[in-house]
Amino acid sequence: MSKRKISESTIRRLSKYYRSLERLIQEGQSTVSSEELAAMDGITSAQVRKDLSFFGTFGKRGLGYDTRALKEQIAEILGLNRKWNVAIIGAGNIGRALAKYGEFEKQGFQIKLILDSDPEKIGQEIRGIRVEDYRKARELLQKENIEIAIIAVPAQAAQSVADLVVEAGIRAILNFAPCSLHVPPHVQVRNENMAIEMESLSYFLTNSES
Amino acid sequence: MSKRKISESTIRRLSKYYRSLERLIQEGQSTVSSEELAAMDGITSAQVRKDLSFFGTFGKRGLGYDTRALKEQIAEILGLNRKWNVAIIGAGNIGRALAKYGEFEKQGFQIKLILDSDPEKIGQEIRGIRVEDYRKARELLQKENIEIAIIAVPAQAAQSVADLVVEAGIRAILNFAPCSLHVPPHVQVRNENMAIEMESLSYFLTNSES
Repeated sequence: MSKRKISESTIRRLSKYYRSLERLIQEGQSTVSSEELAAMDGITSAQVRKDLSFFGTFGKRGLGYDTRALKEQIAEILGLNRKWNVAIIGAGNIGRALAKYGEFEKQGFQIKLILDSDPEKIGQEIRGIRVEDYRKARELLQKENIEIAIIAVPAQAAQSVADLVVEAGIRAILNFAPCSLHVPPHVQVRNENMAIEMESLSYFLTNSES
Repeated sequence: MSKRKISESTIRRLSKYYRSLERLIQEGQSTVSSEELAAMDGITSAQVRKDLSFFGTFGKRGLGYDTRALKEQIAEILGLNRKWNVAIIGAGNIGRALAKYGEFEKQGFQIKLILDSDPEKIGQEIRGIRVEDYRKARELLQKENIEIAIIAVPAQAAQSVADLVVEAGIRAILNFAPCSLHVPPHVQVRNENMAIEMESLSYFLTNSES
């Protein structure tokens, strides 16, 4: 596999192909054309071929791609053929829903730690995981070898949580707080900002004819 | 206000400025420079000025922007100075968390309807809203004048829900199902794909030196 820099948007499309391939395999399909993959994700087949060409040839010879082999190779590229240790910080509505969200586990993202600072929440169990005291965060993040932190706290607390997480050596953050996080360049943040998506929809509804 | 086409990325930045302005107003700040706004959101001040210039001059004269006036104008642009009727389809972990998520209401996104097809869930109350039978979806979506649908069902059900929602006349969808939705061009979909964000992080961790 090439270690060449791949764009963020290619990575996102690979995730989509991965999901489409999973579905095809479930439906018993053993090969797939770039046209078919493209149609499933609403993009062009040229784009699919270009994306997949980054990683060398995947045995296409006019027969299309072998669904299982392609899925395996994408899994390897995305780092999905191993387990990742994940912590959720904030056991409010969003944090709890994520802790219960079974899809993460299936993909290898194992929730190993849930932290909160609310004494009412500390000690509760969510899906068999005890909510731990946020004051012990640094120690516990290291003890559990956490690799990815999900931040699900209110906006005003998010930056200080991010700072602590970064100090604990974590390099990957999924942020659900409705604010921008400032982190050093060796740390990656992905934002799930539902408010921004909703506002983009309300902009669209406001500025288009009904 | 200009009705000129504004890019998706500008709209997203406007949402961020809106949030930053809210914070500044809470902290009692009456004016803000483009540099300060830029620093809050990790972008350049030239970008801030460019984004805001789309909408005409906002009374900057070396004094910076009036925080309240600018917030009001962005609210108008984004369609946030009114209420929107929202339905959540799927009362699983994610749907329930969204129904309880207070931030939406504060921004004017009112959850008016929650639908599910599971007999165990129908009739339950979430934050005072009764979960209704999905089989009555079309009728209820129209009766409640729903404008935005949030889809929080498993991937295999998401497309059929999207089809129904579009048939019911809804033009804006926020999709939490981990799959691509196909909709006609007059309908806008925004995706909250947590799996894709997590995979983008695992790709980064796999392909960077630790």
